[in-house]
Amino acid sequence: MIKAVLFDTFGTIVDWRSSIAKESKELARSKGVNDFDGDAFARAWRAGYAPGMARVTAGKEAFVSIDFIHRQRLDEILPEFGLAMLDEDERTHLTLAWHRLDPWPDSLPGLTRIKSKFMISPLSNGSLMLLATMAKRAGIPWDFIFSSDMHRAFKRDPAVYQNAIRLLHLEPEQVMMAAAHNDDLAAARNEGIQTAYINRPTEYGIDQRVDFAATSDWTIIADSVEDLADQLGCPRMY
Amino acid sequence: MIKAVLFDTFGTIVDWRSSIAKESKELARSKGVNDFDGDAFARAWRAGYAPGMARVTAGKEAFVSIDFIHRQRLDEILPEFGLAMLDEDERTHLTLAWHRLDPWPDSLPGLTRIKSKFMISPLSNGSLMLLATMAKRAGIPWDFIFSSDMHRAFKRDPAVYQNAIRLLHLEPEQVMMAAAHNDDLAAARNEGIQTAYINRPTEYGIDQRVDFAATSDWTIIADSVEDLADQLGCPRMY
Repeated sequence: MIKAVLFDTFGTIVDWRSSIAKESKELARSKGVNDFDGDAFARAWRAGYAPGMARVTAGKEAFVSIDFIHRQRLDEILPEFGLAMLDEDERTHLTLAWHRLDPWPDSLPGLTRIKSKFMISPLSNGSLMLLATMAKRAGIPWDFIFSSDMHRAFKRDPAVYQNAIRLLHLEPEQVMMAAAHNDDLAAARNEGIQTAYINRPTEYGIDQRVDFAATSDWTIIADSVEDLADQLGCPRMY
Repeated sequence: MIKAVLFDTFGTIVDWRSSIAKESKELARSKGVNDFDGDAFARAWRAGYAPGMARVTAGKEAFVSIDFIHRQRLDEILPEFGLAMLDEDERTHLTLAWHRLDPWPDSLPGLTRIKSKFMISPLSNGSLMLLATMAKRAGIPWDFIFSSDMHRAFKRDPAVYQNAIRLLHLEPEQVMMAAAHNDDLAAARNEGIQTAYINRPTEYGIDQRVDFAATSDWTIIADSVEDLADQLGCPRMY
């Protein structure tokens, strides 16, 4: 009955924390900042993500691309990490580190199998070029891409899920949302979409406060994208 | 300087006429209609395409998916081709023949090369599921998909090209539109987009009245998608 499986990306498909930690650490080293904590930097940067989107969802700010939110937060945190000397080009390049995130090891094998039976797409707060670059660089085999710019809204705004259903010309129950975040799945279920929880208990490292396990009876509860492929009956090819 | 190349699909990437002729001919044979002219059927069906979109662009009808326009036209022409007996399921399945069009022989080799240097996407009047199914079935390696449903408008409405530029976060001159139709390129150039003409002089068969050659000094004039790849400096890998 399911025709399309939509995936959250940050944290569910890609490991933003270790990717950002690695790239920022290399940049810091090249600048002579040797006591740089890449993991703390990644967590501090990410901490600006939800508040930035919340201002848009609450109607306090017009819709802006996630790239803009990433850049604003970067400018805020650079001084406390000893990187205030970064110039405009370096800040632009570092902001695009969010376009260069590495998938979790199970993501590509699992998505390849799920793609053999269903349409697969991100349903992400990323911008189109962020998601397209991420996919192209890492080989993520999306059939198409839904970006927040297309909806001009961020999850968990119901408009995002409703717009995806409308663009797919499918009934809500023919669509499945897969995410490592219980509140994303709750918002999807409110629109009648089926739900798959993928457990990523290390996503936020020492900052993780929620999403250590499924908190509701989602349609599927999985430990990885490969486990989701198994539970969706997608053949193992190797 | 170019970052993304956007392609018209019907006629430019896929050969709708021979694909529809073949599938309709097989269906007619299975129904015992033996004097069926598949090529005439394909051309008659396609003749409802531009008028159907024109009613939307002129504001006479609300935006509807191209699948709906295809179905309306199908119902109109079935009697004259001896297929009035088709039931609802058969009509639905036949309408989806537009999701199963075959690429021209040069399309996949050319797109694969262009993808190695640029983001590639359709900028098509097709619906999302039409374009995603077409790509998945035939292996068209789009980086992402722009569908008319996302713009809620059809080419040559300027809104389509403007919305694509907005979603890409690119300057118009960083985007190239590639099409076999001079008027599509003219509409793109009006928005500052670069243009590539791909000659498809047999697209409409005996119905073809225009687009036997480039009618303006487009940025690139090519005989095929592989020729476009050559002119864009994309390496030959084989």
